[in-house]
Amino acid sequence: MSGPQGERRSDSGRRPQGDPARRATGAAWSLDPDRCFSPEPSRRALARALHAEVAGLPLVSPHGHVPPSLLLDDAPLGDPASTFVVPDHYLLRMLHSQGVPLEQLGVARLDGATVETDPRAIWREFCARFHLFAGTPSGLWLKHELVDLFGLTERPSAANADRTYDHLAARLAEPGYRPRALFAHFGIEVLATTDAATDSLDEHSELQREGMNVVPTFRPDAVIDPTREDFLANLRLLEERSGVAVDGYAAYLAALEQRRAAFKAAGATATDHAALTADAAPLPEAEAVFDRVLAGAATEAERRAFAANMLMVMARMSAEDGLVMQLHVGSLRDHHRPTFERFGRDKGADMPIAGGWTRQLAPLLNELGAHERFRLVLYTLDETTYSRELAPLAGFYPTLRLGAPWWFFDSVLGMERYLDAVSETAGIYNLAGFVDDTRAYPSIPARHDVWRRVTCDWLAGRVVRGLIDEDQAPALARALAYDLTKETYRLGANG
Amino acid sequence: MSGPQGERRSDSGRRPQGDPARRATGAAWSLDPDRCFSPEPSRRALARALHAEVAGLPLVSPHGHVPPSLLLDDAPLGDPASTFVVPDHYLLRMLHSQGVPLEQLGVARLDGATVETDPRAIWREFCARFHLFAGTPSGLWLKHELVDLFGLTERPSAANADRTYDHLAARLAEPGYRPRALFAHFGIEVLATTDAATDSLDEHSELQREGMNVVPTFRPDAVIDPTREDFLANLRLLEERSGVAVDGYAAYLAALEQRRAAFKAAGATATDHAALTADAAPLPEAEAVFDRVLAGAATEAERRAFAANMLMVMARMSAEDGLVMQLHVGSLRDHHRPTFERFGRDKGADMPIAGGWTRQLAPLLNELGAHERFRLVLYTLDETTYSRELAPLAGFYPTLRLGAPWWFFDSVLGMERYLDAVSETAGIYNLAGFVDDTRAYPSIPARHDVWRRVTCDWLAGRVVRGLIDEDQAPALARALAYDLTKETYRLGANG
Amino acid sequence: MSGPQGERRSDSGRRPQGDPARRATGAAWSLDPDRCFSPEPSRRALARALHAEVAGLPLVSPHGHVPPSLLLDDAPLGDPASTFVVPDHYLLRMLHSQGVPLEQLGVARLDGATVETDPRAIWREFCARFHLFAGTPSGLWLKHELVDLFGLTERPSAANADRTYDHLAARLAEPGYRPRALFAHFGIEVLATTDAATDSLDEHSELQREGMNVVPTFRPDAVIDPTREDFLANLRLLEERSGVAVDGYAAYLAALEQRRAAFKAAGATATDHAALTADAAPLPEAEAVFDRVLAGAATEAERRAFAANMLMVMARMSAEDGLVMQLHVGSLRDHHRPTFERFGRDKGADMPIAGGWTRQLAPLLNELGAHERFRLVLYTLDETTYSRELAPLAGFYPTLRLGAPWWFFDSVLGMERYLDAVSETAGIYNLAGFVDDTRAYPSIPARHDVWRRVTCDWLAGRVVRGLIDEDQAPALARALAYDLTKETYRLGANG
Repeated sequence: MSGPQGERRSDSGRRPQGDPARRATGAAWSLDPDRCFSPEPSRRALARALHAEVAGLPLVSPHGHVPPSLLLDDAPLGDPASTFVVPDHYLLRMLHSQGVPLEQLGVARLDGATVETDPRAIWREFCARFHLFAGTPSGLWLKHELVDLFGLTERPSAANADRTYDHLAARLAEPGYRPRALFAHFGIEVLATTDAATDSLDEHSELQREGMNVVPTFRPDAVIDPTREDFLANLRLLEERSGVAVDGYAAYLAALEQRRAAFKAAGATATDHAALTADAAPLPEAEAVFDRVLAGAATEAERRAFAANMLMVMARMSAEDGLVMQLHVGSLRDHHRPTFERFGRDKGADMPIAGGWTRQLAPLLNELGAHERFRLVLYTLDETTYSRELAPLAGFYPTLRLGAPWWFFDSVLGMERYLDAVSETAGIYNLAGFVDDTRAYPSIPARHDVWRRVTCDWLAGRVVRGLIDEDQAPALARALAYDLTKETYRLGANG
Repeated sequence: MSGPQGERRSDSGRRPQGDPARRATGAAWSLDPDRCFSPEPSRRALARALHAEVAGLPLVSPHGHVPPSLLLDDAPLGDPASTFVVPDHYLLRMLHSQGVPLEQLGVARLDGATVETDPRAIWREFCARFHLFAGTPSGLWLKHELVDLFGLTERPSAANADRTYDHLAARLAEPGYRPRALFAHFGIEVLATTDAATDSLDEHSELQREGMNVVPTFRPDAVIDPTREDFLANLRLLEERSGVAVDGYAAYLAALEQRRAAFKAAGATATDHAALTADAAPLPEAEAVFDRVLAGAATEAERRAFAANMLMVMARMSAEDGLVMQLHVGSLRDHHRPTFERFGRDKGADMPIAGGWTRQLAPLLNELGAHERFRLVLYTLDETTYSRELAPLAGFYPTLRLGAPWWFFDSVLGMERYLDAVSETAGIYNLAGFVDDTRAYPSIPARHDVWRRVTCDWLAGRVVRGLIDEDQAPALARALAYDLTKETYRLGANG
Repeated sequence: MSGPQGERRSDSGRRPQGDPARRATGAAWSLDPDRCFSPEPSRRALARALHAEVAGLPLVSPHGHVPPSLLLDDAPLGDPASTFVVPDHYLLRMLHSQGVPLEQLGVARLDGATVETDPRAIWREFCARFHLFAGTPSGLWLKHELVDLFGLTERPSAANADRTYDHLAARLAEPGYRPRALFAHFGIEVLATTDAATDSLDEHSELQREGMNVVPTFRPDAVIDPTREDFLANLRLLEERSGVAVDGYAAYLAALEQRRAAFKAAGATATDHAALTADAAPLPEAEAVFDRVLAGAATEAERRAFAANMLMVMARMSAEDGLVMQLHVGSLRDHHRPTFERFGRDKGADMPIAGGWTRQLAPLLNELGAHERFRLVLYTLDETTYSRELAPLAGFYPTLRLGAPWWFFDSVLGMERYLDAVSETAGIYNLAGFVDDTRAYPSIPARHDVWRRVTCDWLAGRVVRGLIDEDQAPALARALAYDLTKETYRLGANG
């Protein structure tokens, strides 16, 4: 076999629905062609029809965490453990919750202590606990990848760990499974990575020269939040990269503007901000506080107020340069300090907290909420804000769009709760479509597939209850699957 | 054609289900007779049967915003734009969220600046964006009104804006579409308006003399909340209307009692209070604080404490005079100051905030929660309080009833979440039935229709799962559609 | 008739599904054999099949409020009123909410004032309002008990109150309805009661000597929370029971350790803690604060900090002795003081408040979250924390399990919301199975029945949408019905 399983997307953009031949063989583990669809016949028939129209649309991926070097190098993805398990904090956290130390899963220790390095041993640990993922989005994505892309026909288990390892290792070694081949196979129209404000962007330029539509996203958290311990060190990087000596607030803003311009020149259409809360408010004494931050003399309260000020400043700059501002709120990072100290960030130990938007964003929206060029996309980890705050805000302010259900809620039930909670107040056209937000490169099609299926099923559910006119559903399905994403993140020709 | 479409309610109170003849014509846009019902056959059959029993019951409308002058004058409603679009902040907010300035929708500027005045131009703007309302309650209500009441057979769109305008304008000019004719056609048994404490109530008296069952509701927010900028000016109005010189706290309470008595004499059975939070607590030093408020010397904290005190005082007065107390909590009014300054209140820029009830109402409920004459109806914009606080409170305190899902949640999914969240703990008989809460007069039947359909469908869903005995469902359906509203708001003969 | 209705559980543990003969008689009131199952045919068929496999499994009851004396004495349960109505605060609260004074329901006054004592009069009050329980979990449990266990064939009502009273009184007098006979009939494998830290545990020892698997649970709230008015009095009891003179912090901890050891020796596998919030944090100056508490000189803030400290101390002791720590958070006890003062605790007037876990448990989880012996089971009355905090925490920390939906949420819809909200992030295997948590002894099978039916229906719903592989569902159904409870609470041979 010389390439990925499943049907390569044809030029027309239509991706056929699975492989009938394989289904006919009655393989022990196969993809249900009606997965995600509700069983009531009239709803299912309509969901199928709507899905058939959008399943083959190109993938627009405006917010992800794939490193550009993956595509630039185009090296084989690696062994099954390092491809599927070790870098995926969704999997690590679940295995950890059931008593598997991260060392046993090959996660590198910051102190250099020994961890498991045998990929086959890691894969065995994973397979022995594959049942933990029943009913989880990880389980759904993995099945999609393993069956559809890698042609596996049995569910991983302790009994078949070596056999499935060998199968996957053989596939991963094939040229058709290299990153660029998969990029084409997946039908990715455009991929936006997420990059530190101080990144060089050289890799993006090189990729674009080679004809790949890969653009950066400006993520300045490290250089705008002085509550971080590494803030001053990051300012040094900012100085270096921007060529601006950051000796005061004015120079600091100039350096940030320089980086935004560089990102825009490299094709960026958006920024991305992660914050514990949505507090955004101008700080009249920002200049003096910045000096105290530089001098190491600012109080914790001043640092927080400065961070809120910088969200405001970033919004103003977005209103100027037109970069779409993304705001992700509510994750308390590194809740378990021992894990952070031993393994570093992004190991599954970030935990959500409650948060609000109505009061927090009031200063920003009073100033820029009706600005004609500004656009702000909001993501939350507190689902209670969907119907109470986010939908009412997005249903009034022309600058707002509601980001796709994020992280723990990028799931079948998470999507359904999101659509149920926001659609009646914000409508469909104030949503931002889908983002796959993934570090797991081979999971990109699986993630879009879930969204497209769930939205089609949800729309079908509205239609069969007479709540949406049937003739309006195809356009809504397409909007959710493709149009809204492209338009929201200004990734189209006329974005 | 000399009157509204659809079937006039017969004397028996039965309203037939749509117009079979029109459905048979296969009009491009028609009402689904099974709208809102879930598709599973056993559930749908039962929902239909339950609905057939309640669809024709009279409408009891205890909380609305229809001005009494509309009925007193009985003038034609106006052109399609000023009837359907300009006064409806649900529509304004959605159109605004998609970039349409309110000026373009004919909303008057407070500064007298020019706005669009051509109703046909406004209607065109609206029609061109009618797709925005897909899946929203506004979309559902509009379709009901336009199809069932006005006989439209095509969905509004840019292409048919002039044709639909002409159709509707012709209908609106007919005598059968005047307010009183519609009142009879809708089968309204009683309508309670919402009126400032300082209103004269002359219009209600006149309407009642003419035989219409229209009563006022006492809404004293403007004269009991000293955090409002216009509080002192409102006290002047209170003095004038009550004939009591408000020179101190005792006189102030006497003036309020005078107004309550006047409302009660005019047929009022209820009061209505809107507050940012549910804080209600007696303030021992209320008299001194009131003096400082009069002198312009009260602090912000004192003003807030006084407002909480006045909710308590209003509750005590309700326990005395038997006016049912309605409390609406959680709307941060005029979130976008530029919109407020340009256009005034109620333009779609109010935003919900999180709020609680358990601690906030404790002082009030400890004093009056088991009082035999007191009744308190609670409405929230924070759905998280349904199952956590409201249902447990209403499931214990005999004075409490849970108000219908309010504002953003007066919708199919909002009603389902409400019923799901409160019914298991509070039961059905601690609910307050339905209120239409509308400023959009022609939408009254549509709003009741959605509630009646959703409650019947929901009950059917419980029955087919064996969770409610089938023989109990008709009484529950009738309670939700009619009995509970009448009983809760004391609008019946023995209310 | 010499014993309970329904089929006695056979030795094989299989409990047949109702009584076909009785169903065939077309009794006016009978149990729907498909109750709780969704009606869509493919889902219902699978739910039935899954349920058939778990319906007969023994009942593991690790958290309940049945007094051990009930089983030790093995006296008849009593008359219908004192068996079903008077001790059940779920029923009392609902009847109270509809205007029935607790005195009329036979609830004893603390001041000795006269209350209704005629059980038949109480039963009549209850029957006349039986319709209030339509759609509530109490209604579902009652129907199960009355029909399946007591053979009632008509729904209680005002009309049949005397007849149903006589029927039930006759059954309750039969030997087959005595507590121990029911224990065997119910198929209870193990029952854990909830006991004050200062209880003697003699009854448990006696029961165990007589061969009954009844164990205590260590509930130390009264002796670890100095914000309680009776704290110092409780310390005296602790001194007496432990034999340790509590003259300082060290002795206090020693006394607590003595009681934990005594509970463990009596078969306890768990502790139980109820707290208003989840705040748990070490207090460096605990020793000095305890001295001030003893001296009556501690401030309210110090008392609260000491209570948080003691949750931390209890967690450390659990890590030592292996008693599973249960934490119930969010109930504001005795919201209505007049009810508390007149009737005491647990009369239905406790009300939930909002609460969080992420920040509150951070100190505890940073110290013990990955401890190999520690286990913490979390219960909430704030459903918003399911998806936002509890599932993310349990999906990472190996020591955490999510407790069953608690109190107001021990219901069909409460269970569905719980499964929907937590399963995608925490998976199924981080859940703690079911606890019946009941004071109403005859309701134990009904409560387990609802959980088993709802979980099977829920799993079936996931399977028919292709979200869980069908061959995985039976093991998941069994885990939820039996295995997870036994394993979580360490009630098995190798617990």
